This record gives sequence, C-alpha cells and structure tokens, in this order.
Amino acid sequence: MLQDRLARVRDRMRKNNLEQIIVTQPQSIFYLTGMWCNPMDRLDALIVTQDSCRMLCYVLAVIEPEDCQVSVYADTGETVRRLSEMLDPVATGVDGWLHSRFLLPLMQLRTDIPFSVSRCVEEARMIKTPQEIALLRRASEITDSVFADALGKLREGMTELELGGVFSESFERHGVGRFAGDPMVCFGAGSAEPHHAPGNARLRPGDAVSVDTGKRIDGYFSDMTRTVFFRRATEEQRRVYQVVLEANLAALEAVKPGVLLSEIHQAACRVIERAGYGAYYPHRTSHGIGIDCHEEPTDASDRRIPVEEGMCFSIEPGIYLPGNFGVRIEDLVVVTANGYSLLNHAPKDFTIME
Amino acid sequence: MLQDRLARVRDRMRKNNLEQIIVTQPQSIFYLTGMWCNPMDRLDALIVTQDSCRMLCYVLAVIEPEDCQVSVYADTGETVRRLSEMLDPVATGVDGWLHSRFLLPLMQLRTDIPFSVSRCVEEARMIKTPQEIALLRRASEITDSVFADALGKLREGMTELELGGVFSESFERHGVGRFAGDPMVCFGAGSAEPHHAPGNARLRPGDAVSVDTGKRIDGYFSDMTRTVFFRRATEEQRRVYQVVLEANLAALEAVKPGVLLSEIHQAACRVIERAGYGAYYPHRTSHGIGIDCHEEPTDASDRRIPVEEGMCFSIEPGIYLPGNFGVRIEDLVVVTANGYSLLNHAPKDFTIME
Repeated sequence: MLQDRLARVRDRMRKNNLEQIIVTQPQSIFYLTGMWCNPMDRLDALIVTQDSCRMLCYVLAVIEPEDCQVSVYADTGETVRRLSEMLDPVATGVDGWLHSRFLLPLMQLRTDIPFSVSRCVEEARMIKTPQEIALLRRASEITDSVFADALGKLREGMTELELGGVFSESFERHGVGRFAGDPMVCFGAGSAEPHHAPGNARLRPGDAVSVDTGKRIDGYFSDMTRTVFFRRATEEQRRVYQVVLEANLAALEAVKPGVLLSEIHQAACRVIERAGYGAYYPHRTSHGIGIDCHEEPTDASDRRIPVEEGMCFSIEPGIYLPGNFGVRIEDLVVVTANGYSLLNHAPKDFTIME
Repeated sequence: MLQDRLARVRDRMRKNNLEQIIVTQPQSIFYLTGMWCNPMDRLDALIVTQDSCRMLCYVLAVIEPEDCQVSVYADTGETVRRLSEMLDPVATGVDGWLHSRFLLPLMQLRTDIPFSVSRCVEEARMIKTPQEIALLRRASEITDSVFADALGKLREGMTELELGGVFSESFERHGVGRFAGDPMVCFGAGSAEPHHAPGNARLRPGDAVSVDTGKRIDGYFSDMTRTVFFRRATEEQRRVYQVVLEANLAALEAVKPGVLLSEIHQAACRVIERAGYGAYYPHRTSHGIGIDCHEEPTDASDRRIPVEEGMCFSIEPGIYLPGNFGVRIEDLVVVTANGYSLLNHAPKDFTIME
C-alpha cells in the first residue's frame, strides 16, 4: 500500500464518519497500491478501515500489495458472499463504481450495514502531488507534439478514422502504445456533435476539423481538443472560433484557489451568451483528470466545489451548431498558489490548414 | 423500440413479477432500440413497464427511439432526481450495470420502491435470432481470415504490441475500424497469464504465441484464441497443447440443448484433470457473446444454466504454467436443435510457425 495516500484517504474517512470503505474502481486501487488490476466483468475490491487493508481478487486479476491481506476467488458465483464476509458491521462507504449486480445482493446479505456512496479516494486523488503533476505535464507535452505532427497531415478526402490512425501512429512514434485510447476526430457537421463517433466522413475544403484526444502515459492522462479549418473558413466559422477562444481564455483567467468550479464555468458561459450562442453550449466547462480521463472534481451546476492548489482539470468550452459545424478548445490546467499553470501548449490561434 | 424484443423482455418481467425495469447498459439499450448511446461517465437509462417506455438521456448522448418518451438532462447534478421522478412505485428490476453513485442515492430518494437485480434483458439477449446469428457468423469469419493473415507475419524480435498492430491492420483491411478492441497478444511466459497485458516482450524461437482477439462488427462480437509455437516446441509444449485441444473438443461434444453450462465446463475439466493439469486451469470454459463480448449466459459453478437452442457462447479451455508458457484454444458455438454449429473455422492442429 502507498502509505501517504492511504493516510490521506483515512483522514477523509474520519471526517465523513465512515469506518470502512469499499474501493472497486481499478484507477482508485492503482492510486492506493501502485498496481493495476483488470477484473473485466468480474470484481476486484479493496476494503480499507483505519487499521487494515484487505483485498478480494478475481483469480485472473490478482494483485498483492504489501501490508494488504488478499483473498482470491474463482468463477464459482461466490463473489458477493465472499465480499460480504470480509466486511465489518460498521458505517460503510462504497466508491461510485460498484455495479448493481454486486451491490444489491451485497445489501441483501448485509442488512446490518448502512451503505452510502463515498468519494474518499476520489477526493484524495483530486489534489495532485508534484510527482503526479510532472507525469501529467509530460503526458500533455507528448500530446502537444502529436497534435503538431498529425494536424500537419490533413489531406482532402481522408476519413475521420484515417486521421484517427494518423494520431495513433504519431503517439506510437512517441513511444505511446497504440491501444491506450481512441482519438475523437470530427469533420464538418460531425464537429457539431460534442461526443461524435468518428466514421467514414471525408475531409472537404471548408470543413471544421475538431480533434479531441488524450492518452494514459505512465499512469496519467492527457486530454486536449483543437479545432482548425481545412483550406478555407466562412465568416461565421471565424466568429464562432473567436468566441470559443475568448471563452477559453476567460475561463482560464478565472482559475485560482478559492473560486468555485461553477464560477469558472460561468466565466465561459458569459462570453458565449453575450455573443448570442448560449443555446449552443450544452456541456460543463471542466472535468478533473489524472489516473482517469474524467475524475473528480466533476463540475455540475448544483455542486459547490472550491478550487484548491494541486487540482488538475480541463477548460473546454465549445459552440456546436447542429448540422453545420462546431468548435471546442480544450486545455488542461493545474491550480497553483495564485492561479494556474497550463499543462499543454499547442497553439490555439484561429488556423486554416492547407 | 424493437417490438419483438420488447415483447420478449416484458414476458420475462411478468414471469419475474417485475412491473418496471431500469436498463442502463448501452448494449441492452441497443438491443431494445437499435440505437447506440454513449453517456461515458454520465447515465442514460431506459425505463420499461408493461405499457410504456421512457428514456432519460444525458444531453450529449440523446437517442430518440420511436414509441419512447425521452427526457434530457444536462450537467446540472440532477441526474438521480430526474430518474427517481420517472419511476412508478412498484417492484423494480435494475439491470446489472447501474453504478453505485447513481443507485444508492436513487434508493434513498425512493424508499417506497423495492429494487432488485433483473436480468430480463440479458436473458432475452441470450437467445439469438437467425439474423443475429448471421451477424455473429460473419464477425467470426472475418476473424478467421485475420488470424490466417496475421499469424503468417510472425518474425523474430517483434514485440507483442507490434503483433497486436499487425492484427489491427489486418482487421482494418477487412473493413473493421482500428478502434474496436485491443488484441491480447502473449509471447512466451506472457502466455501463462490468462489475462496478460501485451507489452514489449520480444518474440523468440521456442515461444508459445497466444492471441485472443475479437471485434464488434456491425454490432456483434467475434472472439477467438489460437496458440501456436514459434520455430520449435518442447515435448511439454506439445503435450499441453494436445490436452487443451482434447479438452476443447470434449467440451464442444457436450454442447446440446438441455445440458447445463457447468456440465460443458466439467467435460473440459475432466480431460485436463486426467492429464494432471487440473491446478493450471483457473477459469470458466464459457461466456456468452453477442452485442457484448462477455454477456449471459455466464458460467459459474453455482449456477444451473440449461443450454438452449440459439444461445451463443465460447468454448475456451486453457492450461497456464506460470513463468513458463500457456495454451488456450477458444471457439464460438451457436446451439442448434441437436448440438452446435461452430462460428469460426481457423485451424487448431498443433502448429509450429517459421
């Protein structure tokens, strides 16, 4: 077990009056143990109390952290019973990622235990150490370099999936495995869908080209979006781009310890609304990033999340005009004592690629 | 909504005394609507009763099936409240895939509703229609062809990830997107880990080469494992291979309507145990396959699952000698009136590749 991190989690458990937590997300298990498990459709679970760590592992996904008692189960259908027998009859926090097929039978077996959702590990993960920030910074630097390389290879008639391949190959040349994440490449009207699935659309002059991609590199993610235009752009495309860029910069300027994450979102929204595009910005501005691509802090209009030094999150306003085109500009920041530091440095001036 | 499938699910709901079910797995939503949603870390949920279908969709993952009332939510933190307001106060089944961060707050808001795990949709999905079987067959045929192509390209010193790339490129040449799944390539001692993560191990003469891969092609998965040997093989490698092949054939011979899935597993186990390798076969023999790579029927020693015509599942015994090598041979079958039909036809005789 990584004792520094464990201590931080136990501290949060005390503050939340939880005597026991069940951690099932592989990312959180990695955070506390330094080891990856991949139980696929089965379950690995780490149980933490103030004075013990125990793990239940599927036989094909066994990890053996120091100072942790490990029990192994096979395909015998006893998963939930085994987990239930490992729990003390105390207030128990469950991380956000336990599936109903395990949780509901567990609650039936242990009606003596009050279960609630616990974000103790996810909250500890929010504040990055200098070592984690260095890994995040390096992942973003590689991604900067891949964007510079791959966006230089646009050619008329190529498909979204082909440009995705160009990004993947560039990551590979930078020593990043082919299989660590899929680039979201959007051409033309596809760029007007914030979560577009890349397909066989072909690149045509006048298309917006929006690429959102990141990779887990040595355990920590990058995530960046840039939008450029192929060969030419309309006045509307230029105008929308400038509004999104201004929103991106306004949100960045709002980042410092003490502000709420929702206030950063509001800074972006104000710019977009003033320009008359408020109805075309349907998503949040920020999500946390680290061992996972989307992690705490997660912005939502009803959550009051004060920004703290060491947090790392995205700033990614966008405007999406259905059936026409869309623009998103996404950067990552780490919060410093007085403001923020950008993790990525790819240019974001309005750009027409030949 | 796809009415035939919906009727089958409602029939199972009646048999299970469930007046309402919540379906959250995108694969199950696809099964009932023909449409893919990808809510990522948010939630899309389909609520089915005997006379209505309603959907709650995240604003970036909206689908609009016919005969289904759709409500959309944004990043406002109201997800669970909105879901809770859509539910009737009746016995409610939850599919196996709802995360605790949604389920536990939902149960707190609706203490009037008895929730239980429901496999109504997953059970309906178990029995494939002729159209689904045709899609599964085609996915496996393409995979046969990719194996023939890619296993011909072994060369000394290549890494597991490089061979993975050869498989991906071959799938691409067959018209299957680069980003639909990662080949599990294992060289030498890596092949002794049933769920090995491919890395930079280099291929050397005498290595077992085990490749487990499949792709979702037009909505339905293939999944196949073949193990070959590079340039030479020891007597032990030959012996273990023959035992696994015999176990594969014995399990196949056991497949017919009426037997239990666990009896098919036992047929494989008997061969492996008789040969003295019982301790080196740690996993189940079968998993269902279809819209998902692992789906119902899921074998486990305590489940009594009678095999039915139209089921599709894997037969994949293996022997894994830690630190040394491993062999797995995986085929897919569809159950017929009197036995089974193989979906894949890649050769499985003992093979040394030059």
